[in-house]
Amino acid sequence: MTDAIRRHDPRVRGFASDNYAGVHPEILGAIALANEGHQTAYGDDVYTEALQEIFKRHFGPAAEVWPVFNGTGANVVALRAMTAPWEAVICAESAHVHTDEGGAPERTAGLKLLTVATSDGKLTPELIDLQAWGFGDEHRAQPRVVSITQTTELGTLYTPHQIAAVCEHAHGRGMLVHLDGARVTNAAAALGVPLRAFTADAGVDVLSFGGTKAGMMFGEAVVVLNPGAVRGLRYLRKSAMQLASKMRFVSVQFEALLAGELWLRNARNANAMARRLAEAVREIPGVEVTRRVEANAVFAILPPEVTERLRKRFRFYTWNEATGEVRWMTAFDTTEADVDVFAAALAEEIRSPV
Amino acid sequence: MTDAIRRHDPRVRGFASDNYAGVHPEILGAIALANEGHQTAYGDDVYTEALQEIFKRHFGPAAEVWPVFNGTGANVVALRAMTAPWEAVICAESAHVHTDEGGAPERTAGLKLLTVATSDGKLTPELIDLQAWGFGDEHRAQPRVVSITQTTELGTLYTPHQIAAVCEHAHGRGMLVHLDGARVTNAAAALGVPLRAFTADAGVDVLSFGGTKAGMMFGEAVVVLNPGAVRGLRYLRKSAMQLASKMRFVSVQFEALLAGELWLRNARNANAMARRLAEAVREIPGVEVTRRVEANAVFAILPPEVTERLRKRFRFYTWNEATGEVRWMTAFDTTEADVDVFAAALAEEIRSPV
Amino acid sequence: MTDAIRRHDPRVRGFASDNYAGVHPEILGAIALANEGHQTAYGDDVYTEALQEIFKRHFGPAAEVWPVFNGTGANVVALRAMTAPWEAVICAESAHVHTDEGGAPERTAGLKLLTVATSDGKLTPELIDLQAWGFGDEHRAQPRVVSITQTTELGTLYTPHQIAAVCEHAHGRGMLVHLDGARVTNAAAALGVPLRAFTADAGVDVLSFGGTKAGMMFGEAVVVLNPGAVRGLRYLRKSAMQLASKMRFVSVQFEALLAGELWLRNARNANAMARRLAEAVREIPGVEVTRRVEANAVFAILPPEVTERLRKRFRFYTWNEATGEVRWMTAFDTTEADVDVFAAALAEEIRSPV
Amino acid sequence: MTDAIRRHDPRVRGFASDNYAGVHPEILGAIALANEGHQTAYGDDVYTEALQEIFKRHFGPAAEVWPVFNGTGANVVALRAMTAPWEAVICAESAHVHTDEGGAPERTAGLKLLTVATSDGKLTPELIDLQAWGFGDEHRAQPRVVSITQTTELGTLYTPHQIAAVCEHAHGRGMLVHLDGARVTNAAAALGVPLRAFTADAGVDVLSFGGTKAGMMFGEAVVVLNPGAVRGLRYLRKSAMQLASKMRFVSVQFEALLAGELWLRNARNANAMARRLAEAVREIPGVEVTRRVEANAVFAILPPEVTERLRKRFRFYTWNEATGEVRWMTAFDTTEADVDVFAAALAEEIRSPV
Repeated sequence: MTDAIRRHDPRVRGFASDNYAGVHPEILGAIALANEGHQTAYGDDVYTEALQEIFKRHFGPAAEVWPVFNGTGANVVALRAMTAPWEAVICAESAHVHTDEGGAPERTAGLKLLTVATSDGKLTPELIDLQAWGFGDEHRAQPRVVSITQTTELGTLYTPHQIAAVCEHAHGRGMLVHLDGARVTNAAAALGVPLRAFTADAGVDVLSFGGTKAGMMFGEAVVVLNPGAVRGLRYLRKSAMQLASKMRFVSVQFEALLAGELWLRNARNANAMARRLAEAVREIPGVEVTRRVEANAVFAILPPEVTERLRKRFRFYTWNEATGEVRWMTAFDTTEADVDVFAAALAEEIRSPV
Repeated sequence: MTDAIRRHDPRVRGFASDNYAGVHPEILGAIALANEGHQTAYGDDVYTEALQEIFKRHFGPAAEVWPVFNGTGANVVALRAMTAPWEAVICAESAHVHTDEGGAPERTAGLKLLTVATSDGKLTPELIDLQAWGFGDEHRAQPRVVSITQTTELGTLYTPHQIAAVCEHAHGRGMLVHLDGARVTNAAAALGVPLRAFTADAGVDVLSFGGTKAGMMFGEAVVVLNPGAVRGLRYLRKSAMQLASKMRFVSVQFEALLAGELWLRNARNANAMARRLAEAVREIPGVEVTRRVEANAVFAILPPEVTERLRKRFRFYTWNEATGEVRWMTAFDTTEADVDVFAAALAEEIRSPV
Repeated sequence: MTDAIRRHDPRVRGFASDNYAGVHPEILGAIALANEGHQTAYGDDVYTEALQEIFKRHFGPAAEVWPVFNGTGANVVALRAMTAPWEAVICAESAHVHTDEGGAPERTAGLKLLTVATSDGKLTPELIDLQAWGFGDEHRAQPRVVSITQTTELGTLYTPHQIAAVCEHAHGRGMLVHLDGARVTNAAAALGVPLRAFTADAGVDVLSFGGTKAGMMFGEAVVVLNPGAVRGLRYLRKSAMQLASKMRFVSVQFEALLAGELWLRNARNANAMARRLAEAVREIPGVEVTRRVEANAVFAILPPEVTERLRKRFRFYTWNEATGEVRWMTAFDTTEADVDVFAAALAEEIRSPV
Repeated sequence: MTDAIRRHDPRVRGFASDNYAGVHPEILGAIALANEGHQTAYGDDVYTEALQEIFKRHFGPAAEVWPVFNGTGANVVALRAMTAPWEAVICAESAHVHTDEGGAPERTAGLKLLTVATSDGKLTPELIDLQAWGFGDEHRAQPRVVSITQTTELGTLYTPHQIAAVCEHAHGRGMLVHLDGARVTNAAAALGVPLRAFTADAGVDVLSFGGTKAGMMFGEAVVVLNPGAVRGLRYLRKSAMQLASKMRFVSVQFEALLAGELWLRNARNANAMARRLAEAVREIPGVEVTRRVEANAVFAILPPEVTERLRKRFRFYTWNEATGEVRWMTAFDTTEADVDVFAAALAEEIRSPV
């Protein structure tokens, strides 16, 4: 029925990243539902229209959702809509927007990032104040947005209270708060609270909502929680090359994810598998789990030769070349067997003579 | 099987744009094939690898393919990779990159476009020379790329010979040639030649290959035909926010389109339906077909009140407010019945008393 | 008293451009006055403070003046302060900001220019409307500013009434008006009206005020006539690299120019010399003056071999390679003898056998 | 002789910044020499031509000089000419280009800065390596230039040997070295070596040469020491709005500064006055000089109420709000009496009861 051929073994899964996973079958099903017939392009379709209501259910009546292609796109569009061309964004030195987006904020939007070193990827009012100064001085890019990531790039979680403290502090200093939620569903599942508890209800102004790592094929969304915090989003999304023509196929994926509890089932599974993995590897002598396992990431230090041998069997990333720390991510489709096989392989490599 | 619900009537199709159509079933099938299991993200997967060979088959052994999300992305990434930050792009005043991309080239890449008025959307050596001057003068943005569109935004076609003449002229003046091929498959089908006949073989350096309008869900590609014409494409694609994490799902769509003849079947159907439409409406008194129907677009002038009434039944765009010229596009899924029903409706509205 | 040495003949003047001239002696005197002792840098000095009042005297109590380094800087800072990052500027195809600024608006500010062909460098409401459309459509860069040049790049003048018509039309369509006044003093002198008659009083929102061609060493100013038309000018001037540290030396030059009538004396001389030149060369058979001589520019067509020979004696620019049209500019320091010598040389070259 | 009036007391000098000073009289004299008559604009004049030779005398035969308006302009033009649009610049967290340029590198050139915390404003190979990684990974902005400042923003000096070590390390890793020399003459004077000893001879590729703080009215220069390190400088200077039309008046100032030893006399005086100031205030109980005084900056901590009272008499900047550290700069025109009066005032304020 197609000239394409299957080129991979669908039984193989690993721990390199949650975006190595494919698409949840229910989401594929939703895409098929939305297919056939014509729908107005560029977001003026019935699926995108319906999405507004679905996001309002999760984030409150003020919420507005703007689907985009990917996470870098969501972050850049959100931050640009929140800033004038002379303003700046305060973020952690480990923030994805600073470290992993190829300079997209600077190159495509002229954004200045003011970074702060953190121990765990999390900003606090005190840390924010290391950069929140110089207001009114034209020699300094004007701090306007605080951008935090939940769950953080280090696998840690802000409590709703901690995010509320960041928001209160930022707002008190005339700034806005953006939350990079590439793994926002993992956070809600881990905290056991609704999505809005640590976003809209905590005072976050704009959210980058992650769909891809939650089980979608592609698609993220800029979710505006405080409409007064943004300007020109409609135009900025287009000029940032993030406006999909056949947008119904982004929107219906979000519908499949968020109309019921698919988002929660997927996130809970990923989180549970990370806990299972952490427990399993903690038992293995020579493996040190280095950070709190609060969502779907496990960081660990192993002997370098073990890392090397294990990597011949499973692909995963070294997080810190200097210390040999590695990162393992679980996904919506990770199974208990996957974890057990991996942990056994690790134990085996540790035991085997050099 | 999904919480999403079908919200539209899959039997309804119109003539507003070829991106109002959905996804060809064979392409949906290919996506399902590529699903399940883990694949390395960001293009280091087996489907993207295989795509290189498939594009080489169409465009010759030098071709390199870089999948991106959308057409604006393909154009901006291609043009930026072909230019230094002090160089400029010559294009027709009607070029999509100038008129319909929300200023993306200027805003995200600092590109200067030097436009030329044309009667039919097509550049010629003489028209190019209206802007190809000032080389070496720092007060003038330095012309470096000639960007043409095939099929043009006005539904017209360059012959392979005409494109070769453009390329020869541009190269002779130290410039490169980019082809915006959002509808490149329609062009090949209409000309009855291989895709390479009017691209690689005619001297085009870089091509934006359109997948979405050809029947894909999303996905376009920058196809480098002359590797010496680009720099930094890998990095520019990322910082332009056009790097899909689950890229296998872009690549496998292209495979479904291009491994066999799906691209040609789709394009032929769209083109044939445009011809059928043109023939049908030409018969109707009071309708003037205004441009040559060479691919899948029909432009016509109708009485304004007819346009108004017809639009209550079918969505389509007015191309020129001043003259009342409208545009009708056919797609891979347009049927003969669709055309006949539309033409009948038009005839009916023309006949009906005001 | 200095290790520098005089390297040029101060008696040699030509007609290539009004910025080939040096500095008016009164302006040099003013610079010396402002020298010695310390003054706060970056514009917080007493000379810049005093300048506010001087500009208000010319342009009315709402006027605010922001000195910058050069004309490109003034234009880019002004236009950026008037636009959001998704908005665009309508200007004549011949506008300096489009043709002679090396793409600075696009490269440094992401500005999209929407150009209109004109016969005489002047926009009209009808011409503006060729680009003033698509409001609310994110696919189109949103027209927000109309930028006109006075005197135009073609040496022509808008009447105050014509500028008022442009402003009324632009404002009526939700747009603002910028005036590139690189030669704004020549315009006022030629029209015989105060500077404000065709700027503030005609409805212009922001003015780029030209100092360099008026006799200064360097320095232009963004003059805000409608404070509601701009945002963030203080910051944009800095990030556009147009904030002089020792700004007192820009400001005192403007004071010397504008506190009394030096600006008018300089402009009147330049304009009178252009008229004298036009009259002299019109008498010469074989010379065709091609445009109205309304300020300090004379355009003419001569036999190509005459241009070539004359250029060995005097430097000047060919305006249009195709037609052989050349441009001669007069300056504040052009003398009657300069004109007469030049006209005689031209007559001589015309007479001499090939 | 001018309508401008003297508005300040030329006897008042302070310690706020070396750009609060005016213009050295010899430089004013040079400007007058270059005045009168016409010279080709935009750098094609005899003074700019002569400047090439003068800079070659200081920096060696490969050196090329490109005058610009100001320091931010010099840095941005230099860094942009050294990088492709996907590359990044490593600099100290305290670097002027990061902290004091209003985000100009990001906003106008899309440059990504990768910053490193330092104790004294100086980079080392080890510190550079904290950011020099990720080569070939498109998710990371590609490190390409190391930018150092001499003298640093903290008043400290690199030895020629330390700069050579930075250059060797950077080159070894495929990177280039830029030196921000806003106070490069103070550095040479303090080190007692020629300007080239710690620039061209140490391996620096491109230098921002500071003229303004050295006694000029305005004007800095991009000095290319390694012509292979830059691309498109001619065009980038223009589109960065840093091309002066009457450039002879920038160039002749540099000639006055560098043809003889004016640069050295000016720098020596400033440095000597800083040493005198440091010695004087060190004697005062309650004043702690916090950093090495190696050029023309003195940093000190005083009791806050003393700072407050002293500031009513002399303007100067607080460097660190948290610690109360203040910065005092000396200039080419600072006199021994200025220092003595200031130190006495400080002593007086310290002694006086609260």
